[in-house]
Amino acid sequence: MTASFADCANAIRALSMDAVEAANSGHPGMPMGMADVATVLFQRYLKFDPVDPAWPDRDRFVLSAGHGSMLLYSLLHLTGYARPTLEDIKNFRQIGSPCAGHPENFELAGVECTTGPLGQGLAMAVGMAIAERHLNATFGDELVDHRTWVIAGDGCLMEGINHEAIGIAGHLKLNRLVVLWDDNNITIDGPVSLSSVEDIPARYRATGWHVVECDGHDEADIVRALDEAVASDKPVLVKCRTIIGKGAPNKQGSSKVHGSPLGKDEVAAARVALGWNHPAFEIPQDIRDAWLAAGARGAAPHAAWKERLAAHPDRLGWERRGDVQPNLLQPHVQSLLANTQKVATRKASELALEAVNAILDETIGGSADLTGSNNTLTKGLQRLDADNYGGRYINYGIREFGMAAAMNGMALHGGVIPYGGTFLVFADYARAAIRLSALQHARVVYVMTHDSIGLGEDGPTHQPVEHLMSLRVIPNLDVWRPCDAVETAEAWEAALAKADGPSLIALSRQNLPQLRTEAAENRSARGAYALLEAEAPRKVVLLATGSEVEIAVAVREALEAQGIGADVVSVPCFERFDAQDVAYRRDILPQDALKVSIEAGTTFGWERYTGNDGLRFGVDGFGASGPYLKLYEHFGLTAGAIVPQILAKLNGEQA
Amino acid sequence: MTASFADCANAIRALSMDAVEAANSGHPGMPMGMADVATVLFQRYLKFDPVDPAWPDRDRFVLSAGHGSMLLYSLLHLTGYARPTLEDIKNFRQIGSPCAGHPENFELAGVECTTGPLGQGLAMAVGMAIAERHLNATFGDELVDHRTWVIAGDGCLMEGINHEAIGIAGHLKLNRLVVLWDDNNITIDGPVSLSSVEDIPARYRATGWHVVECDGHDEADIVRALDEAVASDKPVLVKCRTIIGKGAPNKQGSSKVHGSPLGKDEVAAARVALGWNHPAFEIPQDIRDAWLAAGARGAAPHAAWKERLAAHPDRLGWERRGDVQPNLLQPHVQSLLANTQKVATRKASELALEAVNAILDETIGGSADLTGSNNTLTKGLQRLDADNYGGRYINYGIREFGMAAAMNGMALHGGVIPYGGTFLVFADYARAAIRLSALQHARVVYVMTHDSIGLGEDGPTHQPVEHLMSLRVIPNLDVWRPCDAVETAEAWEAALAKADGPSLIALSRQNLPQLRTEAAENRSARGAYALLEAEAPRKVVLLATGSEVEIAVAVREALEAQGIGADVVSVPCFERFDAQDVAYRRDILPQDALKVSIEAGTTFGWERYTGNDGLRFGVDGFGASGPYLKLYEHFGLTAGAIVPQILAKLNGEQA
Repeated sequence: MTASFADCANAIRALSMDAVEAANSGHPGMPMGMADVATVLFQRYLKFDPVDPAWPDRDRFVLSAGHGSMLLYSLLHLTGYARPTLEDIKNFRQIGSPCAGHPENFELAGVECTTGPLGQGLAMAVGMAIAERHLNATFGDELVDHRTWVIAGDGCLMEGINHEAIGIAGHLKLNRLVVLWDDNNITIDGPVSLSSVEDIPARYRATGWHVVECDGHDEADIVRALDEAVASDKPVLVKCRTIIGKGAPNKQGSSKVHGSPLGKDEVAAARVALGWNHPAFEIPQDIRDAWLAAGARGAAPHAAWKERLAAHPDRLGWERRGDVQPNLLQPHVQSLLANTQKVATRKASELALEAVNAILDETIGGSADLTGSNNTLTKGLQRLDADNYGGRYINYGIREFGMAAAMNGMALHGGVIPYGGTFLVFADYARAAIRLSALQHARVVYVMTHDSIGLGEDGPTHQPVEHLMSLRVIPNLDVWRPCDAVETAEAWEAALAKADGPSLIALSRQNLPQLRTEAAENRSARGAYALLEAEAPRKVVLLATGSEVEIAVAVREALEAQGIGADVVSVPCFERFDAQDVAYRRDILPQDALKVSIEAGTTFGWERYTGNDGLRFGVDGFGASGPYLKLYEHFGLTAGAIVPQILAKLNGEQA
Repeated sequence: MTASFADCANAIRALSMDAVEAANSGHPGMPMGMADVATVLFQRYLKFDPVDPAWPDRDRFVLSAGHGSMLLYSLLHLTGYARPTLEDIKNFRQIGSPCAGHPENFELAGVECTTGPLGQGLAMAVGMAIAERHLNATFGDELVDHRTWVIAGDGCLMEGINHEAIGIAGHLKLNRLVVLWDDNNITIDGPVSLSSVEDIPARYRATGWHVVECDGHDEADIVRALDEAVASDKPVLVKCRTIIGKGAPNKQGSSKVHGSPLGKDEVAAARVALGWNHPAFEIPQDIRDAWLAAGARGAAPHAAWKERLAAHPDRLGWERRGDVQPNLLQPHVQSLLANTQKVATRKASELALEAVNAILDETIGGSADLTGSNNTLTKGLQRLDADNYGGRYINYGIREFGMAAAMNGMALHGGVIPYGGTFLVFADYARAAIRLSALQHARVVYVMTHDSIGLGEDGPTHQPVEHLMSLRVIPNLDVWRPCDAVETAEAWEAALAKADGPSLIALSRQNLPQLRTEAAENRSARGAYALLEAEAPRKVVLLATGSEVEIAVAVREALEAQGIGADVVSVPCFERFDAQDVAYRRDILPQDALKVSIEAGTTFGWERYTGNDGLRFGVDGFGASGPYLKLYEHFGLTAGAIVPQILAKLNGEQA
């Protein structure tokens, strides 16, 4: 006996409600509501091979409504992925299970990206679809020819990032992107009408999308809609009318079924209503066979693809993508030592990128409408748009969050290394995506210029003060603040070589002298190092980052003139310094010297390096509008203001 | 001779280009492009009285495209506000001038909110329009009957927050909100078509707005459009077709005129093109008179309004709005002491809010679709919606950023005190608006629940780890993390009494014992205090916040059992503690004790209180998915794991 479509879909429903019940925690409503749509997608449309979840030409499936994680775990299990096993599913939401509360790409192969923070899955899918079109343009249909599918709920569509994401997709005419909208009319607080009167299809059409509708519980109608979707020359929204929690007879269709276990009685009632007469976690063999057959669809195309790859003229170019030499920029650094540059570090970043983009084909640059300020566009880089997917520069528009999420999607897709720019202060707009870069181990490089009061007249709305420190606390994010052209190159080198996570490079608007005179190794990669050592007996260690290293050098000069020895320690990256061994750190931060930090931002956090006995110079309130040199005076960040306070401290006076 | 409309508009153009030229910094394009629309608005429609910029029933004008600040400064100057003076304008973008690079509400009366971070001005205007309708419903047309006008550019409309903001406005049918869209087809990178194919009017219509179009340089056509706008029963977008930098003959219509001075030659050419034959900063008297007459329009309605206020039956109720007694919640605290509560602090917050909302009429609560999780809705609070503007609870939808910005607008409008909830991890989505709450001195209370790994199974996407510390670095934001029901009430009391800035209250999902047994004063308001003092000779001071105070109490018990005296210091608010005098701080953090911090978040930053010799227990990577007690074990945040490390440290062993 062959399993029916309903049997297959109900297997998802049963696994989902049983796993949530066992965990006594989770979200049964979405998996039960979207089981039919997902069954059609995974059995008929999605190109994938459970034997090799990393097959580069697979379709990407993104569960943007990540709370419905059991939908995805059920699908991966049923179609024959090695994990999750039934045991994994029984341990849903337990420590050590790959079946975490929300899908995590770093825990389970087959999970393309980490979702749960609403709206970002769909926005990452846009980046995946960009990467696909770009690689298709570069390597041809024979290597790259796949789609990106998304399941999204009302939450994903209501979030602001949805506007940015679909704006990018509509502009770029990403017609291989299909969003399956779980249109169940329910949010956590109640019916969608509690908070919205929006005509979502009209909004998508206004943004360059094609829209299809279907009954999300009617197999034939879903097939009709998906056939229409894959034929479109635009990105497609499929409005799937569904009942949340479908199958739970007393709770379906209401917000009660969204985020809590159904409860023993309702689970039993659902079994009756669905005609599912099997114990918890048991799937009859005929249903297993039907699902495994669906999973086996990918074997042949995968094998054929491997043959095409073996025969491809640029196979080596394909395979080396993403391999970055750790000393990538040594020639560029040597040229800087030969021809010293007094430039803003944002300009130094452009110089480094000129070298990077010439060596690495896989970089895709961009900016959230600040190209000329972020210096992210290098000579010869063509625009990536709907007429030229082979280009390598994206005008993302005024969409910082959408840009960051798209870059996450590109990095996770693989084959490209994205970087993108905005002002450092607007890291706040993109912060939720920066966090996901870090959590997902995505190699994304954030180019954040105008990194302090040094930007001058634009004033406190544009002057980052707390941003450096607030970004340094994000785990697995390297925050760089180079002091000159050499350190900027070193930061880029380290950022690109970090394959398992994001980096953020904070860059100055104002010109800075080149302070580094040698570069036998990438000293910045240590996180902190003695740029200048004391000549007189050392009593002071001056710690500074970025544009304030120049000030530290001036402070040192004044101290040395009085016979007080002082090191200048440049601290381009806290995270890297904290990863050094104890001996190195003690050498840089000796016990017997007064430690003094200088950074044009909050002093909070510098205690880690200065101790509470040290001195910390910075900006602990908001900035102000004025020419930048006057602002540095105004906030006491000059050698003239700092030196007397150091002397007083050394003399035991009250600071 | 009477000044013409063109003369009046050209006065704005001349002041703007001259001020930017003098500062050698700024954005002439927008003021010159929108001068005609702004002239119609300020001369014919806007209700305001330059003599009293704080008149509560004035129309609100929000320059969402804040980079065009000279447009606003010109208008305030010309219509007769006391500031900016001509001297102020000549000092545009200099330290000390109220004419900062971007408009700042705290620097200059007449600036309704601080703008520049794109999209947020419009979103704040939505909040102002909500406050207006709510107060109108409460006090009637005779006291509250005004409009909110916005000038926004393409950047404001492209940002994600625009989707959230117009979604709220469309849903609430805020027909007294009019957005004047400077449709000049230019962004910084070049033509809008570089990054967008969006049909903006269609999107606004899809979201419940009415859309009107006009030629933004044709006085009569602008008047026709605004007449239509004020007659609408929906919020209105007015598409004003304009030429950016209009009047600068060689640069207008291109991105060149957006963000740089025109240059001496182009300024001279613009004078010729505009027929403006006056020296820099000189405005002929007839033009001044015309503008002053426009400014004088408000005197009579203002006087009439004052009479209506004097006669209003609830004049006292009107005038006391916003006055919060510093001991507002003492009766509630006393009831907690009498009937101890073991509840999650999110539940404790609900209990506090029950008391608050009964005393203060002016609170307006809400949640970004997590009402039942944030515990923000108290009994008897009606929903505020288009059918009931008098309600006091807003279902904001899944729109954290839009909610936060709307709350800023409400607070700045005055007459209401907004609070709103989401999960703490999603503070990242709203962060740019939280920063603006702080910069603008806006009394907004953020209710952020699920404040650590203590939320359990939802896993690392939902578990804030770095968030507390990253929020503590925002200047002028009080971040509270109360440990029990009493501290929660004290946090609410302090937050509501802080009229000049925002507060954020981080609250647990899990139940916590009530640790406070006395409350003669609001001890939390000190920021940190000894909850328990050592009995044995003190060797240790345990510092903890929120749910980890319970752990500190258990650690103390184990230490005392071994004859080691330990204080437990609860630290509900770093900012408040840092503001205490040295003697108090030294008393809490004595030199001669080992300081140990326990907080289920990043340990970075705790060095300020523990010193580098202390111990810091926390979560320095991302969280995990599992039941919360198991997570606390997994991350070593139990008395059993902590006590041995303290003992080892006291014994001089390596930690």
